Amino acid sequence: MIDAPIDHVAIVVKDLDAAIALYTQTLGFSFVYREIVADQGIEAVGVRTGNAVIELLRPLDEESPIARYRGDAQTKLHHTAYRVADIRAELARLKAAGIRLIDEEPRRGAHGNTIAFLHPKSTGGVLVELCQPPGGGPPREG
Amino acid sequence: MIDAPIDHVAIVVKDLDAAIALYTQTLGFSFVYREIVADQGIEAVGVRTGNAVIELLRPLDEESPIARYRGDAQTKLHHTAYRVADIRAELARLKAAGIRLIDEEPRRGAHGNTIAFLHPKSTGGVLVELCQPPGGGPPREG
Repeated sequence: MIDAPIDHVAIVVKDLDAAIALYTQTLGFSFVYREIVADQGIEAVGVRTGNAVIELLRPLDEESPIARYRGDAQTKLHHTAYRVADIRAELARLKAAGIRLIDEEPRRGAHGNTIAFLHPKSTGGVLVELCQPPGGGPPREG
Repeated sequence: MIDAPIDHVAIVVKDLDAAIALYTQTLGFSFVYREIVADQGIEAVGVRTGNAVIELLRPLDEESPIARYRGDAQTKLHHTAYRVADIRAELARLKAAGIRLIDEEPRRGAHGNTIAFLHPKSTGGVLVELCQPPGGGPPREG
């Protein structure tokens, strides 16, 4: 993960439209994508700042673990994703280094990315995602 | 804040040395700085990945608000900081847009930065920092 840029910081939200308005209209981010990621039970909206994205996540099911994590907060920081060129190689390296993985096998994330989560038990409680863009590694265009 | 890159993502930690070891030895980040920011009641360690920094924050006082925010967690996401070229102009713009500020007046942060926090009441609960590097705006060298 050496020199892996931050791909996105994810924030789980209650009111997606309010969060989009805050980030785009008030804070000045630009809108990038909006899609349902059924596999993860979320609707994801990417808003860009500089070369990184804030990903706003709305749980599709208010009884899901991600909704329970957010609780009554309007918005809550959820995870940080790092962009890697070869996600399988990176997962193998981290596993060999003793990191427990949520996703032994990478899966599809938002925006065409291939993603995998490390287990928070191995990262002091903070959720960390590895993220390989459709074309391969860095950089993200735009 | 248009095209303001992420300067750093801050994580409040319980055991600073364990967190440094995780990020540098296991995850492969590089060490950038370590300093006491007495004003904020924290010891801050910057570890770099790509063009962004993860800032590990250890509360100097376990009874402080930042320590209570972390609670019993080993580590917890705390805030996201965006790098701006003119922090006073940006604060004025956001205030005019109805954003409540924690710091009406920018103050000194870690690593020579000038910083100011927006009030989480205005950002849906997530703490947002603006951050102007010593030389002015973007980019961060390295």
